[in-house]
Amino acid sequence: MAQLALDALNAMSPRDFVAALGDTVEHAPWVAEAAATRRPFADMAALLYAMTEAMASSSDERKLALIKGHPDLAGKAARAGAMTADSKAEQASAGLDRLSEAEFSRFHLLNNDYRKKFSMPFIVCVRRHSKDSILREFERRLRNDATVEKKAALIEIFHIVALRLDQRVEAPERLKVHGQLSTHVLDTHGGQPAAGVMVELDELSASGERRTIASAATNRDGRTDAPLIGGRPIPIGTYELCFHVGAYFARLDTPLADPPFLTIVPVRFSVAEAEGHYHVPLLITPWSYSTYRGS
Amino acid sequence: MAQLALDALNAMSPRDFVAALGDTVEHAPWVAEAAATRRPFADMAALLYAMTEAMASSSDERKLALIKGHPDLAGKAARAGAMTADSKAEQASAGLDRLSEAEFSRFHLLNNDYRKKFSMPFIVCVRRHSKDSILREFERRLRNDATVEKKAALIEIFHIVALRLDQRVEAPERLKVHGQLSTHVLDTHGGQPAAGVMVELDELSASGERRTIASAATNRDGRTDAPLIGGRPIPIGTYELCFHVGAYFARLDTPLADPPFLTIVPVRFSVAEAEGHYHVPLLITPWSYSTYRGS
Amino acid sequence: MAQLALDALNAMSPRDFVAALGDTVEHAPWVAEAAATRRPFADMAALLYAMTEAMASSSDERKLALIKGHPDLAGKAARAGAMTADSKAEQASAGLDRLSEAEFSRFHLLNNDYRKKFSMPFIVCVRRHSKDSILREFERRLRNDATVEKKAALIEIFHIVALRLDQRVEAPERLKVHGQLSTHVLDTHGGQPAAGVMVELDELSASGERRTIASAATNRDGRTDAPLIGGRPIPIGTYELCFHVGAYFARLDTPLADPPFLTIVPVRFSVAEAEGHYHVPLLITPWSYSTYRGS
Amino acid sequence: MAQLALDALNAMSPRDFVAALGDTVEHAPWVAEAAATRRPFADMAALLYAMTEAMASSSDERKLALIKGHPDLAGKAARAGAMTADSKAEQASAGLDRLSEAEFSRFHLLNNDYRKKFSMPFIVCVRRHSKDSILREFERRLRNDATVEKKAALIEIFHIVALRLDQRVEAPERLKVHGQLSTHVLDTHGGQPAAGVMVELDELSASGERRTIASAATNRDGRTDAPLIGGRPIPIGTYELCFHVGAYFARLDTPLADPPFLTIVPVRFSVAEAEGHYHVPLLITPWSYSTYRGS
Repeated sequence: MAQLALDALNAMSPRDFVAALGDTVEHAPWVAEAAATRRPFADMAALLYAMTEAMASSSDERKLALIKGHPDLAGKAARAGAMTADSKAEQASAGLDRLSEAEFSRFHLLNNDYRKKFSMPFIVCVRRHSKDSILREFERRLRNDATVEKKAALIEIFHIVALRLDQRVEAPERLKVHGQLSTHVLDTHGGQPAAGVMVELDELSASGERRTIASAATNRDGRTDAPLIGGRPIPIGTYELCFHVGAYFARLDTPLADPPFLTIVPVRFSVAEAEGHYHVPLLITPWSYSTYRGS
Repeated sequence: MAQLALDALNAMSPRDFVAALGDTVEHAPWVAEAAATRRPFADMAALLYAMTEAMASSSDERKLALIKGHPDLAGKAARAGAMTADSKAEQASAGLDRLSEAEFSRFHLLNNDYRKKFSMPFIVCVRRHSKDSILREFERRLRNDATVEKKAALIEIFHIVALRLDQRVEAPERLKVHGQLSTHVLDTHGGQPAAGVMVELDELSASGERRTIASAATNRDGRTDAPLIGGRPIPIGTYELCFHVGAYFARLDTPLADPPFLTIVPVRFSVAEAEGHYHVPLLITPWSYSTYRGS
Repeated sequence: MAQLALDALNAMSPRDFVAALGDTVEHAPWVAEAAATRRPFADMAALLYAMTEAMASSSDERKLALIKGHPDLAGKAARAGAMTADSKAEQASAGLDRLSEAEFSRFHLLNNDYRKKFSMPFIVCVRRHSKDSILREFERRLRNDATVEKKAALIEIFHIVALRLDQRVEAPERLKVHGQLSTHVLDTHGGQPAAGVMVELDELSASGERRTIASAATNRDGRTDAPLIGGRPIPIGTYELCFHVGAYFARLDTPLADPPFLTIVPVRFSVAEAEGHYHVPLLITPWSYSTYRGS
Repeated sequence: MAQLALDALNAMSPRDFVAALGDTVEHAPWVAEAAATRRPFADMAALLYAMTEAMASSSDERKLALIKGHPDLAGKAARAGAMTADSKAEQASAGLDRLSEAEFSRFHLLNNDYRKKFSMPFIVCVRRHSKDSILREFERRLRNDATVEKKAALIEIFHIVALRLDQRVEAPERLKVHGQLSTHVLDTHGGQPAAGVMVELDELSASGERRTIASAATNRDGRTDAPLIGGRPIPIGTYELCFHVGAYFARLDTPLADPPFLTIVPVRFSVAEAEGHYHVPLLITPWSYSTYRGS
């Protein structure tokens, strides 16, 4: 979908504005209608504020209807193909479209418990999560009382809207809805950036699955040309960076043991802030290494 | 099998000596017979020297017969149960008794190639190796010429004899046939040894299998009460130490992210010297760590 | 002075016991007299307990007299040579016998303020301190009220007695009155202990003076043969370890910049527990290093 | 002195060009005259090339005269004030204007030995050096033969010209004649950049003097707002960064020993490449730190 300029949105008729952004809130074009009256927007933040404010200041009934307009997570709507295109893409991003039967059952049970307790669907901004963190959130939020949980659902809708606006609208200054995951390899044996080190980023699941989601070689400055994750939230979850340092040192004709003491260095860590900057460097010699959350 | 004191071996009749140690060299009691005439032995090293010297100074025919007395690695003898008890236990230690069909075929082909080229069985001291390092040795040694390879085979027999003597004979000073793998966890967040950290040692195979071979909790000094591997060679191969640091910091009420940045820290390394001392410490905070081959 | 065996002290006449240990408490042989009646002592801790208990359970008048029997720190008694031999040696250990005029004046003023407020001399176990930490203690304790300060003075006397007993009496198990300062140099460039690295230990004063108090070369295990400080308390204060790593790497023909990036690595730290174990290792390459309080 | 735009220099009369740049080579305006004929210059590198090429392609007599036009280092010309303004400022930058009598004598002797051997003054681009590295260069180059040494002198003149052009001429792309010295403090105790850490940069001399040449506090990203040295070569020499980490951790109410284990962390290193980028970060907890040459 082509991006719309913020200026163009400011200049549109209300009808066109709603046509353009009405579906950023699931089945609730009234939110865009209300926001349209607050134009012009100086920047993305003002647009987002108008949308969320419209929801926040609406009546309790309207809020509830808004929440109820969302599909179940990994539920029958997903299987039956009855979701909006955005919802579909979002649920796929966290792997909810490829659950095992056991996982599908677990989601099914949680959905039922949740609906029974709160009489509404469980809403979470899946682009900010992995399957594991969604399950943890699900269980955590099931323990909320109804008032707290309604607020929690609304906040998730705000997250969803913010990410959809970020995708649809073009403006000079972006919303702060992206995280970044980057690395840097320093060769403290030779006192230089380590160039040409293969790095893979794997997403790990609690049940032991591993999926490579990015890979790159370090450049002359020991960094990857682009962040391993950027331009989107980092799904809250567990990751492993695998640095192929054995091949690097072998290429430099460094004297090594046979087999080398270090061949692939795995660095496992979890992301707690989807919008955070996670810089995870590696300081390496053939016999030692350090890593840390940098900045 | 109960250990025999070196003093007792020194005092035995030649016949009893050969009965006691004759089978430390596969199907070649003449080695013990020759060694018996060099008694008394001041220490284990003298005993080992007498045994290896008997082999090294024997005729080429005898050496070849000695080599040929050994079974194929992971060969039909293993499957048919036609090996000596020692050979059987040794091959099991490297997992050669539980090969997949594919691995069995690979060994079978290598055995055939080797027999075709050298007209003798491939001998390796399996207690010093993992399945992966045996396969690498197999391929490396297949490229030797016959003279070099006969020497290589003899050296492996010496390793085997040394380890068998170490198991059978008791003496105040031991042979240097053991390696050691140990760790130490320092909490550089609190400035103290990290006590009560669960540590697991996994053996990794090239094909991606993982087998936990030791686990322990650190004591008040941040060390495990006993080395993770000790009293035997460390099989040449790849290992991963997994340090459960998330639970440690949580127990101390350290402020942590949710989920914590570090929960399990994997440290992957390879052992190249079966008799080496591998001390692999971890310096840890909730946000960083260092590791190295220490001493 | 030759050490006396604890057994011999147990067997002595009371008179001889008092002759032997009477002066471990400055001008108060009655403490040893009282302790003599509690013999035999199973170990050093029992002896120390009998001495301190005699003081702790004495009347307030006696306690005050005991305190008043001590000389001023760096006071006229020191200059006039009117102190006991023990006091003299102890004050010298912290450098109180070689004060500048300015320092002498500062001590003089503090002594006056202290006597004016508490009507007794300021007592501190100088073997556990440096000049700087004595001055800090002096100022801190001047803010105490009289009751708290009398207890503080008594505790210092207990420390003094414990160290004097440790010097005078021989017994299988020692009192825990010693600290230890040690180091270890790991070459993480070569993956081995760094042997032959010159290490100096300097004591730093707040006013910028530096005094080398120990120096040693590392042995094959990367350690010094003996701890840099051991067998006595570590004076509370600030220290700098200087590691001569440039010469070490040059000797190994490691490729280095000219001049090398690292030649002498200073590691500055403070000791807060005189009886603590301070192990301060260095992990070094020609381009990086790490240090930490180890164990 | 106001900078001249490269475009303006391209457009000037030859006479004005020589007036503007003639003195960038000491007492040799003919170099600028020759360069003027090669205009226009596309960039600074072309201008520099024209100047150095004029010198490199001149006759041996002219080269020698060029060299002889330079003053002695820290010589009588310096004391008598008979140098060009540029030379004066340059010699001051390395501290040659404030030598002790002993140092002045040492330079005097070296100047004499050098003149005796080579019949020309010793030339070195002092902006790239400290007093210590000049003395080391002096002694090293005294061992050259005359041919090698004449080339060495010319190369130093090229360095001098490049730096003078860099100061005089303004152009979009700069010559690569600057080094950079920067730092970064990461708090691996709290998992964040360490903000508000005071950092001082001292220049150390072989004879033990210390001169603070820069100081700054780290900003929210743990960096200093500007590099500690930038926009000029880094004098080849030895430096010490002093990080005031004790105050930082105290401000965060981190539990610390009294006195804290680490208060000021000194990091001592040498610069070998005047045009290099020296990034020297500190990873710090209250009980440990790491540093390295980064990028």
